[in-house]
Amino acid sequence: MEEVVQKLQEDVRELSLGTSTRVERLDGPPSPLRFLRDYVSPNKPCIISNAIQHWPALTNWTHNDDYLSQKLSRSIVSVHLTPDGQADALVPSPTTTSTTTTTSLSSLCFASAHTQLMPFPEALRLISSGSSDPFVAYAQEQNDCFRSEYSSLSSDVETHIPWATEALGCHPEAVNLWIGNHLSTTSFHKDHYENLYAVITGEKHFLLLPPTDVHRLYIHNYPAARYSLSQDTRELTLQLEEPRRHVPWCSVNPYPPAAIKDQEVSKFPLYFNGPRPFECTVKAGEILYLPSMWFHHVKQSPDSRGRTIAINYCMDSTSPVSHT
Amino acid sequence: MEEVVQKLQEDVRELSLGTSTRVERLDGPPSPLRFLRDYVSPNKPCIISNAIQHWPALTNWTHNDDYLSQKLSRSIVSVHLTPDGQADALVPSPTTTSTTTTTSLSSLCFASAHTQLMPFPEALRLISSGSSDPFVAYAQEQNDCFRSEYSSLSSDVETHIPWATEALGCHPEAVNLWIGNHLSTTSFHKDHYENLYAVITGEKHFLLLPPTDVHRLYIHNYPAARYSLSQDTRELTLQLEEPRRHVPWCSVNPYPPAAIKDQEVSKFPLYFNGPRPFECTVKAGEILYLPSMWFHHVKQSPDSRGRTIAINYCMDSTSPVSHT
Repeated sequence: MEEVVQKLQEDVRELSLGTSTRVERLDGPPSPLRFLRDYVSPNKPCIISNAIQHWPALTNWTHNDDYLSQKLSRSIVSVHLTPDGQADALVPSPTTTSTTTTTSLSSLCFASAHTQLMPFPEALRLISSGSSDPFVAYAQEQNDCFRSEYSSLSSDVETHIPWATEALGCHPEAVNLWIGNHLSTTSFHKDHYENLYAVITGEKHFLLLPPTDVHRLYIHNYPAARYSLSQDTRELTLQLEEPRRHVPWCSVNPYPPAAIKDQEVSKFPLYFNGPRPFECTVKAGEILYLPSMWFHHVKQSPDSRGRTIAINYCMDSTSPVSHT
Repeated sequence: MEEVVQKLQEDVRELSLGTSTRVERLDGPPSPLRFLRDYVSPNKPCIISNAIQHWPALTNWTHNDDYLSQKLSRSIVSVHLTPDGQADALVPSPTTTSTTTTTSLSSLCFASAHTQLMPFPEALRLISSGSSDPFVAYAQEQNDCFRSEYSSLSSDVETHIPWATEALGCHPEAVNLWIGNHLSTTSFHKDHYENLYAVITGEKHFLLLPPTDVHRLYIHNYPAARYSLSQDTRELTLQLEEPRRHVPWCSVNPYPPAAIKDQEVSKFPLYFNGPRPFECTVKAGEILYLPSMWFHHVKQSPDSRGRTIAINYCMDSTSPVSHT
């Protein structure tokens, strides 16, 4: 079975993706036909430069320190708090004593962030400050938040990406805003929708693996846990969910600390010894087309204000709008 | 396992194909984008009317009895000869005595036609004549024959279908001509390429089943056999190939003779008791888009000269030409 999957992975690279791990970069928006034919149909990522230079967000959100806080002065937004910037990630399970440095797979849990509602200006301060708080804040709710919590910013961007809408024959199902800092990371996972990821300021660094590389990520079931914030100490504690439930999640951390790198390589040889993932940096003003079902790991570099801001459009091409 | 496949088949109909078994008919050629987005990407057949009315073939090949024979007067072409018009079909195995009317699966073989080279004018007479010969002739070589054996007809049709070429990003890998009569049928099978099937004269009747209905066709291995023509008696005899080889083929004949209909229904309940196949008639001047991997069964009605003529374009969208 493993050989069959290995062969499939090789075939996909040879026949469709090519052997380079570079993500193709287009100089400007493609025609809808080209986008559908050359990227969506073959399930192939690409970066589109000069795609959003006409969006007011590119200047409004970056050149004026007060713009966002003024626009959203009365908005209450959700912020994800974690000790280290890693939400939806595997960490040592709170029931395990962590006196040993080697952590076995079974002693890990899947940790979700603490979600805190707060006024937007406070959220932005927390994210940008590099504050002395013992947690990292990341504004990232994947519940169509841009069209709800952040709707007062709607005129700063387009409500959809016209060439993608025409190619896929559908409007976005969700539009989400992401405001993070240099510590915010997202561990390897996949989504079931076509994703257009526009960076407004800062840079996003993606590692991408095609769906056929699923076996290289060692997906296992981990007990679900969640951080909660003590209002007194302002410290986060991690607790397993009760009743217990398990979440299937990718076991591989592609950037293991040097001290445990060798261990990680021997635990996950198919990842570390196999073909390198596709790797790309999406800069401010660019859009990444991330095909549905591709595994992706994301970290980011902030702008001079300490922030990375992006907006993503989730499209479900299996639910087309009617068209003639 | 069977339940899983059954569920998949239902999901595909519910989410993608719809519950009607009607094939959508377009009034004219679609834009490349629409064709790719609404039919190729979702792997959905359609018929395009008024698609080839500018082809000289529509008049040249039908209004003038001598045109084809004059154009191809010196061409030697391949003609498939079978006793009953069914090539690449399951028939009682020649090693089995066929004194019983019930034929068990294991007593069938996969019979290929006898291929006879002959001058085109003779081939056309054989096909059209309803002659007293004890065989049915069908000019149908799927080896790009239109661009080789029949190349003197090339100016009568287009070398490719422009909107399909642009949508798929590739030129045809093969262009084939089919000249048959009312007896010519093709049993259920699938091809691994995108297929555009243009009817010039007569009508083609298709039964279509999506790839996810594979279990309903009871694909089994059958010993390969081939007809050969005695030059003396002009009779066809069927012989098993030596060395023996086996061909996986669909067991279902969708039009069983009335006398054995009940038997066939009880042998292949998933076909006969499941959702009806998509059914369509492609008329002269129309193109059927037959997506790759769809199972299809074909029979035909002739024009007033006793002929059905069609030309099909095989496209492999995984081998795109370079484009900008």
